[in-house]
Amino acid sequence: MRDFSPSEMVKRQYIFETIKKVYNRFGYQPIETPAMENTETLLGKYGDEGDKLLFRVLDNGNPLNQITSAELAARFGASLFDSAAFVNHISGKGLRYDLTVPFARYVVMHQNDITFPFKRYQIQPVWRADRPQKGRYREFYQCDADVIGSNSLLNEFELIQMIDEVFTALGLKVLIQLNNRKILQGIAEYIGETEKIIEITVAIDKLDKIGLDQVNNELRSKGISETAIEKLQPVIQLKGTTTEKINALKNILAQSPVGLKGIEELTYIFDLLQQLPLQSAQYELELTLARGLNYYTGAIIEVKVNDLRTDFSSSVLGGGRYDDLTGIFGLPNVSGVGISFGADRIYDVLNALNLFPENVAATTKLLFVNFGSNEEKYCLQLLGKIRKLGITAELFPEAAKMKKQMGYADAKKIPFVAIIGDEEIKSQTITLKNMTTGMQDKVDFETLVQQLS
Amino acid sequence: MRDFSPSEMVKRQYIFETIKKVYNRFGYQPIETPAMENTETLLGKYGDEGDKLLFRVLDNGNPLNQITSAELAARFGASLFDSAAFVNHISGKGLRYDLTVPFARYVVMHQNDITFPFKRYQIQPVWRADRPQKGRYREFYQCDADVIGSNSLLNEFELIQMIDEVFTALGLKVLIQLNNRKILQGIAEYIGETEKIIEITVAIDKLDKIGLDQVNNELRSKGISETAIEKLQPVIQLKGTTTEKINALKNILAQSPVGLKGIEELTYIFDLLQQLPLQSAQYELELTLARGLNYYTGAIIEVKVNDLRTDFSSSVLGGGRYDDLTGIFGLPNVSGVGISFGADRIYDVLNALNLFPENVAATTKLLFVNFGSNEEKYCLQLLGKIRKLGITAELFPEAAKMKKQMGYADAKKIPFVAIIGDEEIKSQTITLKNMTTGMQDKVDFETLVQQLS
Repeated sequence: MRDFSPSEMVKRQYIFETIKKVYNRFGYQPIETPAMENTETLLGKYGDEGDKLLFRVLDNGNPLNQITSAELAARFGASLFDSAAFVNHISGKGLRYDLTVPFARYVVMHQNDITFPFKRYQIQPVWRADRPQKGRYREFYQCDADVIGSNSLLNEFELIQMIDEVFTALGLKVLIQLNNRKILQGIAEYIGETEKIIEITVAIDKLDKIGLDQVNNELRSKGISETAIEKLQPVIQLKGTTTEKINALKNILAQSPVGLKGIEELTYIFDLLQQLPLQSAQYELELTLARGLNYYTGAIIEVKVNDLRTDFSSSVLGGGRYDDLTGIFGLPNVSGVGISFGADRIYDVLNALNLFPENVAATTKLLFVNFGSNEEKYCLQLLGKIRKLGITAELFPEAAKMKKQMGYADAKKIPFVAIIGDEEIKSQTITLKNMTTGMQDKVDFETLVQQLS
Repeated sequence: MRDFSPSEMVKRQYIFETIKKVYNRFGYQPIETPAMENTETLLGKYGDEGDKLLFRVLDNGNPLNQITSAELAARFGASLFDSAAFVNHISGKGLRYDLTVPFARYVVMHQNDITFPFKRYQIQPVWRADRPQKGRYREFYQCDADVIGSNSLLNEFELIQMIDEVFTALGLKVLIQLNNRKILQGIAEYIGETEKIIEITVAIDKLDKIGLDQVNNELRSKGISETAIEKLQPVIQLKGTTTEKINALKNILAQSPVGLKGIEELTYIFDLLQQLPLQSAQYELELTLARGLNYYTGAIIEVKVNDLRTDFSSSVLGGGRYDDLTGIFGLPNVSGVGISFGADRIYDVLNALNLFPENVAATTKLLFVNFGSNEEKYCLQLLGKIRKLGITAELFPEAAKMKKQMGYADAKKIPFVAIIGDEEIKSQTITLKNMTTGMQDKVDFETLVQQLS
């Protein structure tokens, strides 16, 4: 887990603020949920692996008080922590693992106060007891936007517009990859392996990484027939423009109603994208895209960095449509679609490509040097006026050595320093030092303000 | 623990943004620390009561794996949860209880990267396993600003200016109460009970609530002599203006160097406050103010609401100077001073006094009614233009019944609705409905933009 220093924080805030501004402009509204959820809310939602990665919070008030070790053994068996019942006995809460499950719980719990379609965003940390490794953290922020209670594909289109707006504002070139679960289902039907859709998509999802031969080997190992694998080859190797791919798929999936429905959905989105072009993001149909398949039922969205100066290959955003997220909490048939920006990865890429704006690091604009109590009071007057104008300014809090005060300005990347001694007070001027050029000048108050604005 | 709905979130964000803006303008820089800290960092810092209120996080990877109940009994005794050793064995981490201790840990850990004086702010949730009650939550935000590494009283003065700026911006009338630990120490010396300073201040801190007789009874019960109690009476009943109180104290504490030092410190601050008046906050010397005394060594600050329309008596801010916060983590003699806004209480007061600005609740400015795919595409064009101007606008995602769409605008408090059907498309106009007045008008695009701006 990490501390964030001021210089990291201002960059992180810049990313969050950019995302927030776009979410707001599209009418998404913020919510927050508590860090801790009841164990029942969290368990069983992220697969066995996910359950293991949950951080569990010990119940307060001594849940084992007065229980002797002998009684424990009788109730939970000899090896306590192998017993899920034991862990559940001492821990009724866990830290949230993502923002989606708490959101689903929120929607069900507050359904009578919510006007649907409900467009919400949520920017909060989540916790996973992962082994720490490069680019993976045990505490990290998720930045989710979801619409719930609307089947309209317009939502998918707007989410894509939002992705484009955010990455355009950040100056990061990206490729938006789109797919549709229904097409994957159609393909599974077409090759005669309807039941094996998950195994098939998990395998072809790896095409980029392990190559075609290994994908086919994996398919074999999962019990997919040779005939099916053969039928699959031209499909996963489909080349050409999006239009060409879609036309080819129309033929291949002609007998699969669900597959054709998937094509229809994608076509609607691609048509809109042609009529209302994005600002900077590229997009493509990517048939091997299968992320979170257990979960998504329609659109699948992933965004990759599209800049030759970096080989950063992880996705910086994921998303898709899910038809029954709230069903597990007793509210069935509510369809939703959402996206989640990977803020930590975006941070790493912007840093590597030097895309953070210069001025994001500068917090204080002007430092007044402190020469003692007389000068201090004079400076405080000016300081008040400058801050009133919305300019961030500081007076060094004590009459330390000049070197120390200038070092402070340097370390804090303060671009201007005001030096006011006896002489300046008499002549009502300010000696202003530009810390970038090193030049210094006697100016009056108006000129000072002009220089800072 | 609480969910925050959009209407609560926008109000909360308004408070946080107001505080943040002031913190930034005074040159304070943001940091963040992780939700979880090592148990050793947290334990023993908040007294016995605080230790009990820590949320402990279960170690992952089965810390009791393979340990039989019999072995447990041998190692930790029969009644497991009575054994702190047992709890420490299964939990090496806890959720942060405040922002001060993590900040101290941060300063020590990063001391070589920090330029002192270090002015940092931190706005993050903290967790306490308190019994939930009105106005007390198990998860709540703290909004702290501290300067560390500077003894200058200018910091105290600037913190008071910041308090004034924040509450002036929020439109909340407050009374800033000031005291100084050194004066309390001087008083304890004066009455001949130097060692009992904590007991004395804990007792006189209750003067407002329990009255003078009860305070004296408490003093007696703590073993304070009758002579001392008698000597204390005129001191705790000091009346008059701040200047009158200070002059009286100068006489009373004439023999106490530490007491005089406290008076000198307060005088410096009160003098500056007279020369550079605050905008709206009142201030006073409050000799019975003693909060967090174990901890504060100089200035003590507390803020109360000062509005006759409410009897809200809890403090909305606390703060003070501590001379050795980082000593416990191995970096002695670093003095700091800081304040912490109680955002939840401020929220409750602003709500009760109806002080949130009207427009804080309005997120989306304009809703386009959706009549079907033709109109949809036309609206999308306009929507893009409007959003480009920075105006928050939405298109209802499906061609639902008019009543549903208008209901959506109502529930979301959207002030304007654009109705665009065949006719409007032909005439290149927009039927604009003002949801506040109910009036509707045919306008062109420029007029629409004007109305929204």
